[in-house]
Order: sequence, then structure tokens, then C-alpha cells
Amino acid sequence: MPFGLEGRVMPEFFKVVAPQQIFDALAGFARLAFEQIDLEHSLGRVLGLDVVSKEDLPARARSTMDGYAVRAADTFGASDAVPALLIAVGRIAMGTLPDISIAQGQAAEIPTGGFLPEGADAVVMVEYTNPLADGEIEVTRPVTKGENVLDRAGDVAFGETVLPAGKRLRPQDVGMLAGLGVTEITVFKKPRVAVISTGDEIVPVAQTPSPGQIRDINGYAIRALVETVGALAIPCDIVRDEPDLLRSALGNALETADVVVISGGSSVGERDHIVGVVSGFPQAEIYAHGVAISPGKPTLLARVHGKPVFGLPGHPVSAMIVAQVFLLPFLKYLEGEKLKKEPTGQRVRAVLATSVHSPHGREEYIRVRLEWEQDQLLAHPVFGKSGMMSTLVKADGFFVVPIHAEGVADGEIVDVYLF
Amino acid sequence: MPFGLEGRVMPEFFKVVAPQQIFDALAGFARLAFEQIDLEHSLGRVLGLDVVSKEDLPARARSTMDGYAVRAADTFGASDAVPALLIAVGRIAMGTLPDISIAQGQAAEIPTGGFLPEGADAVVMVEYTNPLADGEIEVTRPVTKGENVLDRAGDVAFGETVLPAGKRLRPQDVGMLAGLGVTEITVFKKPRVAVISTGDEIVPVAQTPSPGQIRDINGYAIRALVETVGALAIPCDIVRDEPDLLRSALGNALETADVVVISGGSSVGERDHIVGVVSGFPQAEIYAHGVAISPGKPTLLARVHGKPVFGLPGHPVSAMIVAQVFLLPFLKYLEGEKLKKEPTGQRVRAVLATSVHSPHGREEYIRVRLEWEQDQLLAHPVFGKSGMMSTLVKADGFFVVPIHAEGVADGEIVDVYLF
Repeated sequence: MPFGLEGRVMPEFFKVVAPQQIFDALAGFARLAFEQIDLEHSLGRVLGLDVVSKEDLPARARSTMDGYAVRAADTFGASDAVPALLIAVGRIAMGTLPDISIAQGQAAEIPTGGFLPEGADAVVMVEYTNPLADGEIEVTRPVTKGENVLDRAGDVAFGETVLPAGKRLRPQDVGMLAGLGVTEITVFKKPRVAVISTGDEIVPVAQTPSPGQIRDINGYAIRALVETVGALAIPCDIVRDEPDLLRSALGNALETADVVVISGGSSVGERDHIVGVVSGFPQAEIYAHGVAISPGKPTLLARVHGKPVFGLPGHPVSAMIVAQVFLLPFLKYLEGEKLKKEPTGQRVRAVLATSVHSPHGREEYIRVRLEWEQDQLLAHPVFGKSGMMSTLVKADGFFVVPIHAEGVADGEIVDVYLF
Repeated sequence: MPFGLEGRVMPEFFKVVAPQQIFDALAGFARLAFEQIDLEHSLGRVLGLDVVSKEDLPARARSTMDGYAVRAADTFGASDAVPALLIAVGRIAMGTLPDISIAQGQAAEIPTGGFLPEGADAVVMVEYTNPLADGEIEVTRPVTKGENVLDRAGDVAFGETVLPAGKRLRPQDVGMLAGLGVTEITVFKKPRVAVISTGDEIVPVAQTPSPGQIRDINGYAIRALVETVGALAIPCDIVRDEPDLLRSALGNALETADVVVISGGSSVGERDHIVGVVSGFPQAEIYAHGVAISPGKPTLLARVHGKPVFGLPGHPVSAMIVAQVFLLPFLKYLEGEKLKKEPTGQRVRAVLATSVHSPHGREEYIRVRLEWEQDQLLAHPVFGKSGMMSTLVKADGFFVVPIHAEGVADGEIVDVYLF
């Protein structure tokens, strides 16, 4: 072999795949197991089982307004000119069942949320009533049966599926569970993700790099990224470019983690020990070594000991893009959500402010800064050389130039995934 | 006073204000103090001070590609037909300064991220080189000076403000700080928010409500909401509708919390002890007792002991809307961000699928479910009676009908704030 090229030849297991194939491989992994947790710590957790209500909510008809509980029929035709006259028979207290009932021609004062007394079937808002001196009230607008009343089970009925398995709980979902008295829930475990940085040139962040060295950006950035989707990041020591060290680090990580992410060294070069080390494990399967995206081509996806192993590029920018595109949706899937085959992050539509060009044959991820201008959301591409962290820092998100497009012209609409 | 109305008369300090006045009052509170934290725990924290780089990044020119470090002039006019011939003089290793230099007519193999050797000013991608048997390489494309090279300080220059005070740190920001060796940062403290539920009818979630009682939805929902913006929620006991109990609970909460949120009892009715209790504290100031929004009108905003006190409606739906509209932007402001005078939550544009009507004179918050349909994001209003938690559970966000509009017609574009 010619001088200088010994390590640069494509290994036979090198295979560049389309992004879709990565997702297909990821969909083959099983989701994590369940655990029981307290409702107090359930925000952001993903339900393992449907939650089915064991109660009616409300348990009994309640008023949705401050006003008077009445029989709707008694207010028929009421107006300012010809008000209906009703006898006020008392006031509904909160916290107990009403001890009064409403007969024809009667009304009871009721606060918002108060339980409707026997006999009443509607509530007149206080704004449409006038108290008279003799214990009567005037009603100046008619109400229909059920008006300003939330019927028994009107919110949630016994036996109803309130929240489905696979739902990540938001504050209102937590509130709903509280309302139903669900104090313990079954959720998917959080993915534990070991994050390993490799490279002879990488030094811990607290260390001043000697000439030729750089600090461990990836360890921090990827752990932080993993935490944004609620997964647990496990820090690992930096590993030098020696197969034995990497093998040992990977073996250890596989014992405690659900997913292992190795960054650095997965490009096609002499330093690329990762694919060799990974494929040396028994029954290891390599799904992809190279994916047709930019940045991020030198990405490895494998299964070792039944667990997913991601090899991310050493370049922090590429590593973060790949993580956002493949790792984060996968972590959400492992934790019980549907596998969304697109980058994680809210998607917004914007108008591209400057044309971008992109080579055929790979998906290109263009970082953009978003700006509202004259009621239009503009996406300004953040240009910069490969490997500039500052492009990610300046950007609000990115959009994807499809694999067979040559670029996108300014003025066109793009779907931006927000960081 | 006529029977049944003693407590329902407007107290003299009752004042309904426009939403803008709430924001103006909130802007008068001082932000929280700083603290020092470790970079490892910095995700989602807000910088108290600008971060200014004390280094150049990279410290020295690096290659952005796998290839050969060359003098650009040596590749002038190179093509497949007439390649430039260069002598390969070695390989750049990672982790150390290059010990070779490039003279005219020479090239050195260089990996992505490798530091450029003396004499080289560009990198030819490996794809445009052919190794020859005699230690020479052919270059089939010309490069310009600086091509495939990230110059010294090309990413970040010494003295540059990398991240400004008031910035909430994302994963890439954490990565950038790691790259600059910033291991400790100055951030705003997290707001501590005491959440008090009041009401004779409210029972703890674990308890089975007697007839007339309901479970403490608000405590759970509001604490969860507060946590979504990174603030610390402090659970408090449920307080019955007795002024002395509330006074004592509020006094205790003000000692440990930065913000106190009381839900329930702030409507204009007999149960409304909150405004009385609040205004009984020395130097208490009531900014608003009632705000022109729906749902959420019976909202109280006050300053007690110099700290903000929010009185939210007892209705969980109203309480959550008010919290999302006023409390969450305010918590982000307290923690150092700009005060955005709009609801927290990503804003997306959608097409309203069904017309909605709304009374003049108040802002109306319409919950919607979002759905992509034929490449259009549709907002379907989630109708339901006031107080139905299920409307919030079924919704993805809400849009605002402006204070003087009568509604929004179907087909119109609305800005939806996502939950």
C-alpha cells in the first residue's frame, strides 16, 4: 500500500446509508421497562399504560359561574323589561353537599364550582340578576337547561381513557391525574446514556490544552443534549485512541447504560478504531458506518450486547447535529413515545432569507437564525466553516435540504427545527 | 343589604386591568441575585454576566477535512487531466503540534481537526488526491488559500463576547463554554415559588373527596407548570377559607419563597379573603384585582414584603391559563431573561379550522388542537364548558382573540402558543 494510506482504506464493513435506514434500524430496538413513580415527580415522564378514570369528574353537577341555581323553565322569556321573579332560598356553600333544594319559583345563590342543589338545572349569571329588598331576585335573561352547569361526568366519565400509554405528561396532564386521585403511575424508565469522548487530542475541560490539544466539548454538549429529552447522561472518562482502552470503556458502559454514545474517531482514517472495536464484540451488528447527511457523515450505528451504540463524529458541530437528528428521537422512543423519524425540536415554518446550495446525494442541515420581520418569520442561514461551534451558538435551529435537492432559493418556505 | 349578597359586593380595591398593566407591574420587580455554579449543571440556567473569551478558538489553524495540507499556490490549475504532483512528507498526528513543515511542492496527510503544519495554507480533500507509488500524490482540484482550514480564532477570538448575560444556556452553549475552558459560571438564582391552594372544598389528592369536595388539582398543575421554566416549586399545605389561616400561610411562604402563588378564592364573592388578607400586610400594594381576560378574570397581583403575590382563580383551567400568560414569563424574567409580554410557549402559525366568537372588552384564550392536513397546520378549537380540565388535556396550545375583536373567522391565520 502506498505511503501514508495504510489506515485510510475503506474497511469492508464501511457502509454509507440513507437517514431512513438509520431510523429503520433504530425502530428494531425494544423500549425500556416500566417503573412506578409518585405523581409529584411525573412531569415529563411517559405513561407506560393507559390511564382509565375510576370516577366521574365532576362527581356531581357543578356551577361554572357565580350566580343563582334555578329551574331553567322559571326564566323563560325573562328580560330587562319583564324580569322573572324568584324567591332566593339560601346560598350553596363550598365543601359540602347542598342542604337546600329548589322548587318551582325558587333560586339559590351559588359560587363558581359550587355543587348544584336538588331541583336546579341551570345557573343564571349574577350579572343578569337584581336583588330585591324582600328576599326575591329579578332575573333579566332566560337560561336553558344545563346552562352554566358542568354536568356530572361532563369533564371525565368513569371508564374513559384519560391519557394514553406513550404520552409524555405536561402540567395539565399532571393536574388531570391529580383530579382523578391517581397518586402513583406506571411510566417507562428514563434512558441511561453513557457518553464517551475519544481522541488523543482531547483533554478534560478544566485542563489547559497543550499545543495540539483541545478540550472535551462533546462530552459536555452531548450530555446536555441528552438531558433536554429527559434522559439520564452518564459521564465517562476520555478515552485515548487505543483499541484496548476503547474496548474496555465500551464494555463497562454497556453494563450500566441503555445506550452508549461514543464521539470522535469514527471517520474513515487511521484513528478510526471504533468500528473495529465495536465489531469485535460477540454478536455485534453494524447497521451503518456512514450516513448520507452533512454535517455528520461519519456516523456509526451498531448493536452490541443487544444495546444501541452510536458513534458520532469528533467534530462537535457534526456530533450535535447527528445527535439531534437520530439520537434524541430515539431516546424519546426508548422512553415510550412513538419513533418520530425526524429531528427532535419544535418545527416552525419560516421564509428562507438567503439562497443556499447543497450537493446532491446527501441531506444537508443548514443552521439558521430566526427573526420576525414585517410579520414574517425569516430564516437567515448561519454560514461558517465546518466545525465552528459559534455557528450553533448563533443559530436558533436548522432546516433540511432534501437528499436529492441542489439547494433552496431565497423566498422559499422552509421547516425549521428549533434547538 | 339584601339577603344573600353581603359578600358579593365589589370591595373598593377591586380593579380590573388590561393584561398590559399586569406586565407593566411585573416589570417593576427586581431580578434575582447571582450564584456561581459548575458548568456540568449549567443546562437551562441563565447567565448573570457576559462570557468573554480568554482564548482564541481554535488556538491555531486546523483542518476541517481529511486530506492533505498544502500550499494553495502549488495546486493552481490542477485538474483530472493535468494533476499537480506533490511530495508527501508525512502525516499530522492528533494531540501534538505538527513536527513537520511544508515547503513548496510538498504535502502532509492531515486528519479532520488536525493542526496545520508550518508552511501550509490550505487542505486538499482526500477525494481529490491520488497516491502514487513513489511517495508522491496527485492533486486533481485546485484549492484557494484558507480552503478547508479553520483559521486561528476563526471560531471565537480572544476578547469576544461569546454568550451575553440573560441567555438561557442550551446544549451548544454549554459545549462552547467547555471549549473555552469555562468550568464555573455566574448565573441568576432559580426562582423559588410557593404554591398555596385554598378552599374549604379542596382535599389532598390522596384523599377520597366526600360529597361536595374536590381534589387539589391546582397544587399539582401549578407546581408542574412552574417547573417547566426551570423554577423551583415549593409545595404548601391546603388552606381553608379562613383569613387567619391564609394570613399565616402567606406570611410563612413569603419568608422562604421569591414568589407566592395562591389559587382559589380570588373571585368576587363571599369566599374572597385573599385580597383582604393581602392588603392587610404592611406596605402591601394591590396592582390588579381582576384582569380583562377569559378565562382568568379573577386574578390578583400584589406586592407584599417587596415580593410578588399572584392570586389565581380556583378553577384549574383558568388558573393554568393565567399562570401561562403572566406567571411563567415573569419567572423567566426574574431569572434574568427579558420580560416577554406574551404567553410562554413556542409560538406557531396555524389556520383556524372553525370560527370562534368572543365578547368585546376582554382577551379570550381559545384552546386548540393542532393537526397537519394537506401540508397546512390546522388549529381546531377545543370547545367545552368552563372548568373542564379535559379541554386542556386535549389541547396542544391556545391562541388569543384580541381585547377588542368579536372573534376570529375560520380560515384566518392565528398565532398558537404551544403548551
